[in-house]
Amino acid sequence: MIVLFTDFGADDIYVGQVKARLLQTAPAGTAIVDLLHGVPDFDAHAGAHLLSALHGRFPKGAVFFAVIDPGVGGERGAAVVEADGQWFVGPDNGLLSVVVARAKRTRHWRVRWRPDALSASFHGRDLFAPVAAGLAGGVLETDWLVPSDGLDVNYGAEDIARIVYIDHYGNAMTGLRSGNVPHQAAIEAVGRRLDWARVFSEVPTGSAFWYENSVGLVEIAVNQGNAATQLGLSVGDAVSIIGSP
Amino acid sequence: MIVLFTDFGADDIYVGQVKARLLQTAPAGTAIVDLLHGVPDFDAHAGAHLLSALHGRFPKGAVFFAVIDPGVGGERGAAVVEADGQWFVGPDNGLLSVVVARAKRTRHWRVRWRPDALSASFHGRDLFAPVAAGLAGGVLETDWLVPSDGLDVNYGAEDIARIVYIDHYGNAMTGLRSGNVPHQAAIEAVGRRLDWARVFSEVPTGSAFWYENSVGLVEIAVNQGNAATQLGLSVGDAVSIIGSP
Amino acid sequence: MIVLFTDFGADDIYVGQVKARLLQTAPAGTAIVDLLHGVPDFDAHAGAHLLSALHGRFPKGAVFFAVIDPGVGGERGAAVVEADGQWFVGPDNGLLSVVVARAKRTRHWRVRWRPDALSASFHGRDLFAPVAAGLAGGVLETDWLVPSDGLDVNYGAEDIARIVYIDHYGNAMTGLRSGNVPHQAAIEAVGRRLDWARVFSEVPTGSAFWYENSVGLVEIAVNQGNAATQLGLSVGDAVSIIGSP
Repeated sequence: MIVLFTDFGADDIYVGQVKARLLQTAPAGTAIVDLLHGVPDFDAHAGAHLLSALHGRFPKGAVFFAVIDPGVGGERGAAVVEADGQWFVGPDNGLLSVVVARAKRTRHWRVRWRPDALSASFHGRDLFAPVAAGLAGGVLETDWLVPSDGLDVNYGAEDIARIVYIDHYGNAMTGLRSGNVPHQAAIEAVGRRLDWARVFSEVPTGSAFWYENSVGLVEIAVNQGNAATQLGLSVGDAVSIIGSP
Repeated sequence: MIVLFTDFGADDIYVGQVKARLLQTAPAGTAIVDLLHGVPDFDAHAGAHLLSALHGRFPKGAVFFAVIDPGVGGERGAAVVEADGQWFVGPDNGLLSVVVARAKRTRHWRVRWRPDALSASFHGRDLFAPVAAGLAGGVLETDWLVPSDGLDVNYGAEDIARIVYIDHYGNAMTGLRSGNVPHQAAIEAVGRRLDWARVFSEVPTGSAFWYENSVGLVEIAVNQGNAATQLGLSVGDAVSIIGSP
Repeated sequence: MIVLFTDFGADDIYVGQVKARLLQTAPAGTAIVDLLHGVPDFDAHAGAHLLSALHGRFPKGAVFFAVIDPGVGGERGAAVVEADGQWFVGPDNGLLSVVVARAKRTRHWRVRWRPDALSASFHGRDLFAPVAAGLAGGVLETDWLVPSDGLDVNYGAEDIARIVYIDHYGNAMTGLRSGNVPHQAAIEAVGRRLDWARVFSEVPTGSAFWYENSVGLVEIAVNQGNAATQLGLSVGDAVSIIGSP
């Protein structure tokens, strides 16, 4: 299974080109799953925390094609990581680093191979897709990768107290893992205090709250409403944990 | 074939997680088709009329994963329905009820099974996906389902005189089936009278009209324009059938 | 491989119905790839230049389902083209014509077959999908197609000096092929002069420039910003090539 995690946009010209490349190279029958193409544009830091929350929902052996790549065509490296039995391919700009920092066991490589036709701006299609397809097939030319000691850019394992993603309902996910925040605590964002609820249907329609979302993050939501619009939330906004009342 | 019909958003983190679960459980080669992830958010009633208009375009034996679930984590039931040879899995909140009310022959079950890891807010991934995958494979553990007499929430078979969906062109579909509205009739919405035309290319560019759309509903459109923006239409707006001139 | 290129929208009710039809008819294992469902609405001319830039990224033998169809239900023809080993199916409204004009070798047919159930407004599902599936399987009923001398509507092979697509980052692609524009030249759009850069990471954050994009078109962009919003660009805006300083 190859899992795509990008800021390419689900309705744009990029994902289809990547899939054509994957389909031409990966073994017949390899499933390609679009996890997210709406990672906040250019934001490898937010993406790194989202990827860390999401990858555990996929099986061992899955190959993650993880590409948010504002530095494409510049000096940033190209990395392959094996972390606790899953594989990750993408730019070495921090995007893979939170998964790495939280894994029990990792192995690292740098991508040495360059295709004959390498565009300046779309390494997702030209470089990372062939590598991901090779990994999914269990075969890569032996000289495509060189072992490395780790990533060049590392954000570390710690939570970040910021909004990292707003979904289409307007729910705002933070970089705080809910296991680290007691239910008695309130969350403050944009000057608003938000108390915990177990689930949407336990608060009145239109009320704002925080809850442990389905991927283990603290999330700010409004029952049957749009929290981002109603509260004025944006990706990058700081949040803080405040004591119980 | 498993057909997905949700309000999860096509470019969000939810559909990919559902697909990963389906792929791990359904028989190899099961096709997964995204019918719509843009059902109006939380609107099981509008969704019920859309699903009724659309399901006939898919083959017998298709399994519909139909999830608009604002009551997730609360008291609403989880239903499986067989209606005229197709299968439907989703929350018992009315979403499946228009298909049921219009079918010739239905059978009903309640989902008794609960997974060990059941999130409070994402039963689509944790509960409905495994059930849909089991149905697609023709095998479900015998104790997962219990027969039931029908659904708890029923909207009935009748048309609704409201806008139920606005597509990305700005065309506004109503809950009126075109077979119930004569071509001589006009439609009124937001105070505007709209006459019938057979198809877009038969009215001048920029003109508004109603027509029988490709799934059998009365639809308000503008030739090469955006009817929703131009006329100020929203999901939920009332429409009425008025006499011929 | 069947490649979909439409203005149907990725999150709308149309693509899923097309895929269901393709899956029921095409040989098992045929890959279906969404190239783009966000071609500017109704704009066969812009779409024709985009398709010409993109199709070369797909293998020989690929079948392109290319449908932007504002004239559906009217007099426009339905065409099948083989161009340099790839296949194209769609309305004869100019959409296929730039590919044709730039190909070395083409063969043309008109679609004579009409299905029993042909909606007035969705020939993508009812007419073009069965034809595309038949082509992908290498078999079509012999009386479905009749040879023709060429297309009815032709835009020609020349570049167009207009914006033909704006992606979700806000990058604006033109109908100018970058091989026809020297790096020393500047591009003018909406009164703004833009100089060339090789790639995003070579200009300061927030700066506007033009570059050769990954499909060979002149594209106007802002490093880590939204060029369309920042410069006020829209599809259809004229661009011009101005001399080097």
